Amino acid sequence: MSTPPQLDASGRLRHLLTLDGLPRDALVALLDRAQHFADGHDARDALAGSAICTLFFEPSTRTRLSFQRAAQRLGADVLSFDAATSSTTKGETARDTLKNIEAMGVRGFVIRHKQDGAVAALAAAAERGTALINAGDGRSAHPTQGLLDMLTLRQAKGRDFSKLKVAIIGDIRHSRVARSDLHALRTLGAGESSSIEIRVCAPESLLPDDETLHGCHVTRDFDEALVGADVVMMLRLQRERMDEGLVSSLEDYHRDYGLTTARLKRAAPDAVVMHPGPMNRGVEIDDAVADGPRSLILKQVANGVAVRMAVLEALLG
Amino acid sequence: MSTPPQLDASGRLRHLLTLDGLPRDALVALLDRAQHFADGHDARDALAGSAICTLFFEPSTRTRLSFQRAAQRLGADVLSFDAATSSTTKGETARDTLKNIEAMGVRGFVIRHKQDGAVAALAAAAERGTALINAGDGRSAHPTQGLLDMLTLRQAKGRDFSKLKVAIIGDIRHSRVARSDLHALRTLGAGESSSIEIRVCAPESLLPDDETLHGCHVTRDFDEALVGADVVMMLRLQRERMDEGLVSSLEDYHRDYGLTTARLKRAAPDAVVMHPGPMNRGVEIDDAVADGPRSLILKQVANGVAVRMAVLEALLG
Amino acid sequence: MSTPPQLDASGRLRHLLTLDGLPRDALVALLDRAQHFADGHDARDALAGSAICTLFFEPSTRTRLSFQRAAQRLGADVLSFDAATSSTTKGETARDTLKNIEAMGVRGFVIRHKQDGAVAALAAAAERGTALINAGDGRSAHPTQGLLDMLTLRQAKGRDFSKLKVAIIGDIRHSRVARSDLHALRTLGAGESSSIEIRVCAPESLLPDDETLHGCHVTRDFDEALVGADVVMMLRLQRERMDEGLVSSLEDYHRDYGLTTARLKRAAPDAVVMHPGPMNRGVEIDDAVADGPRSLILKQVANGVAVRMAVLEALLG
Repeated sequence: MSTPPQLDASGRLRHLLTLDGLPRDALVALLDRAQHFADGHDARDALAGSAICTLFFEPSTRTRLSFQRAAQRLGADVLSFDAATSSTTKGETARDTLKNIEAMGVRGFVIRHKQDGAVAALAAAAERGTALINAGDGRSAHPTQGLLDMLTLRQAKGRDFSKLKVAIIGDIRHSRVARSDLHALRTLGAGESSSIEIRVCAPESLLPDDETLHGCHVTRDFDEALVGADVVMMLRLQRERMDEGLVSSLEDYHRDYGLTTARLKRAAPDAVVMHPGPMNRGVEIDDAVADGPRSLILKQVANGVAVRMAVLEALLG
Repeated sequence: MSTPPQLDASGRLRHLLTLDGLPRDALVALLDRAQHFADGHDARDALAGSAICTLFFEPSTRTRLSFQRAAQRLGADVLSFDAATSSTTKGETARDTLKNIEAMGVRGFVIRHKQDGAVAALAAAAERGTALINAGDGRSAHPTQGLLDMLTLRQAKGRDFSKLKVAIIGDIRHSRVARSDLHALRTLGAGESSSIEIRVCAPESLLPDDETLHGCHVTRDFDEALVGADVVMMLRLQRERMDEGLVSSLEDYHRDYGLTTARLKRAAPDAVVMHPGPMNRGVEIDDAVADGPRSLILKQVANGVAVRMAVLEALLG
Repeated sequence: MSTPPQLDASGRLRHLLTLDGLPRDALVALLDRAQHFADGHDARDALAGSAICTLFFEPSTRTRLSFQRAAQRLGADVLSFDAATSSTTKGETARDTLKNIEAMGVRGFVIRHKQDGAVAALAAAAERGTALINAGDGRSAHPTQGLLDMLTLRQAKGRDFSKLKVAIIGDIRHSRVARSDLHALRTLGAGESSSIEIRVCAPESLLPDDETLHGCHVTRDFDEALVGADVVMMLRLQRERMDEGLVSSLEDYHRDYGLTTARLKRAAPDAVVMHPGPMNRGVEIDDAVADGPRSLILKQVANGVAVRMAVLEALLG
């Protein structure tokens, strides 16, 4: 099934499915508006009377809470459907679930699904006037995470990304976060002047076998990836990678790819550290880094609400 | 335990437990008000400051969401208690659960329970001023589903039901939806002129052995039930009927009682198709019918919110 | 880890972790304000725009609903995280969960945890401006239950507790309710004139081995504890006490420590009966007592909302 366009004929955003191909203007407009909300402004009238449903076929309490808080600050009514643990769908298709809740007058859907492309497929079934936000599908995309990472980066390093040296470390292969970050970084200008500006580092088994890394400098050597980096984006190591035999042990992984204070010294003196959470402390990141002065990790979480407000408002306002 | 009257001495609705015996005037008034809400009107002040609790001893996400949306559009505060999956009732009786939440100041309860009569029994324990809505009890009643079906039918076929030929197909024996529909259809005048106006069709094992079918034309032949029908109401086949030996196989059931495009041609040219959801596509109904031009299925869902607004407002406004 | 002070330098309440050491003035002020809310007043503007999160590492639907209702009546936005059943924390620490939701802009947390001191430990990690309410930690404290019991007692018996004879019966050893009640009773003056004013009664195996009972009259004889008592506070018998061998059988427990109508006659003629719920009817309390004219049990529940409003307002208003 082909992905439905997330922009309509006049270039207006109808859904937010991916950052891949989202025009720079649209992306920057969302970030600018998100900054307004990050500065503490509410907009309680923006979506008053509108209903938004979080429809999670794969559980994620943190992402759900972030979207709920965003919707509350816009004055929307929120409904929540935990389709992952619900015994009540009774064999109903995801499409029928969506169409039913849509028929109840819900205009905005925040959807997470474990299958790649599932949210785009659902968007193809939505009525005109209904907006879908991809809150993570398979390993494909997690666009609001990409946006919040860009907002956080912009606050720390300014709007000009072209000179940035960004290192992304960890399980890129299975990471929708990494894919959305890479799409956004490219659109915003990182990597324009030189292909080595985006460095990607992981053990061979956790590197993607698709087009994801086009234009990136790929290495298996963490120390090499870190040298002079302005931004270090750590990824979560899912523990099931052990069971799948992709990683030998947490101890080995930490030795080779765990970010420690010592290792961080190889990066630029004012390097910042990011992580999408939830963290495996002591595995991909040490406490001293996670809670240290270079960490933007809680700032990312705070920006998540602001970015989701901007997206909900753009789609439904 | 005798059912408490859902009408008080002056004929005002105190609870909504069943459509059985609900006076025609009361039923029509609810439908008229529901139509107002279906036309898009909100009433955010109607229940502002009031609290409503969905208290589901049997899970049903769709019905819960529909009531929640209705309560939101009336400005009520909503609390939700999933008593089916909660480990926290700690052996407490349903009555104690109700009385406790009532003591918290909740005025309206939307209750689903797997036992026949459970909601009426709880209503007997409620304080004056507390209203209970039966959101489905056992196989007895699902009055808001009956109301939304009537509203949908009225929109499609007009207010005069006396000339309608209605076919209800499937597991009537275990269906609270069928019972509430039959009560409402009779009250609104279907079957007045002739007993064959309501046709009921199911395999022998899925026909009720009680008074439910009084005045209906009963047949095991789907084609006979369909001839000239203005309305075809399909019921969901619960998969546990297979385990219980009441149905031999999904394939057999579909062959004998599945609504296909070909079969639908036996009905009136402008026949409409209804289903309470969730559908077993390919079992009791084919995709081409469910998603076809005769289907009112999503219209039913939309009307569900409007009907529940009317009921909540009538009981608590 | 030392408990962070719940009062700031100027004596203002920052968190509510325990009633142990809470000054009498602060306690009385909360009760006075709670009485205002119990009289039916809302304060929809008090917390408008603020977000409160119920964060339960141990499930308790009733306590959660009571806090949610309190938050609604203060106009706050409510988020809910059932950390006990969530599969989504993915090994994250409770501290990281708190810090993340705090970063989303949540100012108030209502936290239940099965470990003693867990809420105080989390309070030490909170930012200035973030308030935590202990909704029950281990066997240590359940301060809002203590407050609601005091409010209920005050309504029934007046503000002067010094002449009261209070009997607390049951599993005091494992009861955070008993501990918070004892702290509050002492602060409000019970037991001032004589150490026998607070009588504590339980089988040996359910008596605490710590400082909890300082100044109480301890007995294993229920009838002795009841003689002339003005207030009888029954505690819930957790069924796991059977498995742990602390109680031989429910029948034996009921015979020795169950409150029956006959037994209640030993108390003062106008004695009142309280229970924190949920009740084991027929075990620690008989139906005739629980539902009888001396019972304040549902009044306790009603006062729970009022007390939680007062606490939320004091911490966040």
